[in-house]
Amino acid sequence: MKMQMDVTSLTAFLAAHFPQVAGMFAVEAVGEETVIRLKVDESHLRPGGTVSGPSMFALADVGIYLAILARIGPVMLAVTTNATIDFLRKPAAGRDLIAKVRVLKLGRALAVGDALIYSEGGAEPVARASMTYAIPPK
Amino acid sequence: MKMQMDVTSLTAFLAAHFPQVAGMFAVEAVGEETVIRLKVDESHLRPGGTVSGPSMFALADVGIYLAILARIGPVMLAVTTNATIDFLRKPAAGRDLIAKVRVLKLGRALAVGDALIYSEGGAEPVARASMTYAIPPK
Amino acid sequence: MKMQMDVTSLTAFLAAHFPQVAGMFAVEAVGEETVIRLKVDESHLRPGGTVSGPSMFALADVGIYLAILARIGPVMLAVTTNATIDFLRKPAAGRDLIAKVRVLKLGRALAVGDALIYSEGGAEPVARASMTYAIPPK
Amino acid sequence: MKMQMDVTSLTAFLAAHFPQVAGMFAVEAVGEETVIRLKVDESHLRPGGTVSGPSMFALADVGIYLAILARIGPVMLAVTTNATIDFLRKPAAGRDLIAKVRVLKLGRALAVGDALIYSEGGAEPVARASMTYAIPPK
Repeated sequence: MKMQMDVTSLTAFLAAHFPQVAGMFAVEAVGEETVIRLKVDESHLRPGGTVSGPSMFALADVGIYLAILARIGPVMLAVTTNATIDFLRKPAAGRDLIAKVRVLKLGRALAVGDALIYSEGGAEPVARASMTYAIPPK
Repeated sequence: MKMQMDVTSLTAFLAAHFPQVAGMFAVEAVGEETVIRLKVDESHLRPGGTVSGPSMFALADVGIYLAILARIGPVMLAVTTNATIDFLRKPAAGRDLIAKVRVLKLGRALAVGDALIYSEGGAEPVARASMTYAIPPK
Repeated sequence: MKMQMDVTSLTAFLAAHFPQVAGMFAVEAVGEETVIRLKVDESHLRPGGTVSGPSMFALADVGIYLAILARIGPVMLAVTTNATIDFLRKPAAGRDLIAKVRVLKLGRALAVGDALIYSEGGAEPVARASMTYAIPPK
Repeated sequence: MKMQMDVTSLTAFLAAHFPQVAGMFAVEAVGEETVIRLKVDESHLRPGGTVSGPSMFALADVGIYLAILARIGPVMLAVTTNATIDFLRKPAAGRDLIAKVRVLKLGRALAVGDALIYSEGGAEPVARASMTYAIPPK
């Protein structure tokens, strides 16, 4: 499928519309598989040095959202309607998290994607997430 | 079911073990229905003044976790294995969020609970969440 | 909320539009909590006499669907877009299953409900389910 | 990962332990991606000729279960603890369904897998499912 947005335009969109969180993320690749990085710092950690669940949720949510925007162009008001996450393994301490995202459906009203999240350099996923977004009527 | 922990001991547990986030939450009631408040501030908001998805995820996760601890006592290492959230309505701007939690299963290995989340004073839920936790072997 | 359909009209709707499965279910109550029974027979069982997962899925799906129709009237084409089930306990052998359903959201495009499923006469739920339905544009 | 069971032994396991449903399914491939077919007949259909939600649930459940058994060997008592399905598109009328399964986690207590389900010959998935199974202690 032809992409409407690339790494540069998604990065600019994130900075313009989500300035509170844009610095936490890096868009690394856009395409069949879209890749987003969470730059892990102290604020994402729980006791024991593991990345918190809400931080993994945020990465999956931003990653799937951006992968959908890459296909439909910048739509500001799409909202998440359903999110499911399986936490599979403890993330490695001190490593960034990498989300690899697929878009599974782009309907008129709903879009669905899923993601596998890895500790950077890890071979096995630390989490799996799927999310649904409502697309506002034009 | 007899409770092992009450509002005071859950509040102390949260402060001792999750100091990064304890200030965000208030334990308001413990029992058949456990009630947890998210004290919403600027850090929880998205453009338009709505509370972010990860903030609602965090409230549900902390709330269900504490409702389980109230029944089994302070178990430090229980981890979330699965989380599902339905986002139902836009939260009211400038209001705290209130999670009302039920515990549905307390097994030897797994515990399950769910929550409805409301904007304070609102009659209809803004989100529904269910979560599963693995309980470490003794 | 005022109901558009009652036990009699929901039962008739089920028989008219889902004749393959209507005989498996009984609508027992309609209101804030809608109650649907799965009349368990041999075809629903797995080895060991427990009710199969797909049978519990079917009960939750039909139950939440009917609880939504009770509020919006007979809409033939609403489709399930997301379903999540937590299986909590083994159902009691040889007992019917009872689903107690809440409707959580009735939007223009999406409706969401959840259910607790019990073995008849049991105090603790055997499963928890939540489902989302897309409502076709008028 | 080395497989403990192949197409032949999984097919025999299904016939021996799930005789009520074994005839509905065919194990087509075992490996990194395990492939299971639902041989669609009248009993799986809903009004309009579409395959029912419970039939897709059953395919995902059997498919992920068998993909896990392929790795750990025949374990009779593993039970499904959580299932999430996104229904993405209407299946094509009169076509079998094909589930392509990945195993994401094989822990001592829990195993997790996910699946994409296609109408035979279709390029886009009709459903996405993820499931968690509890593995009984040895």
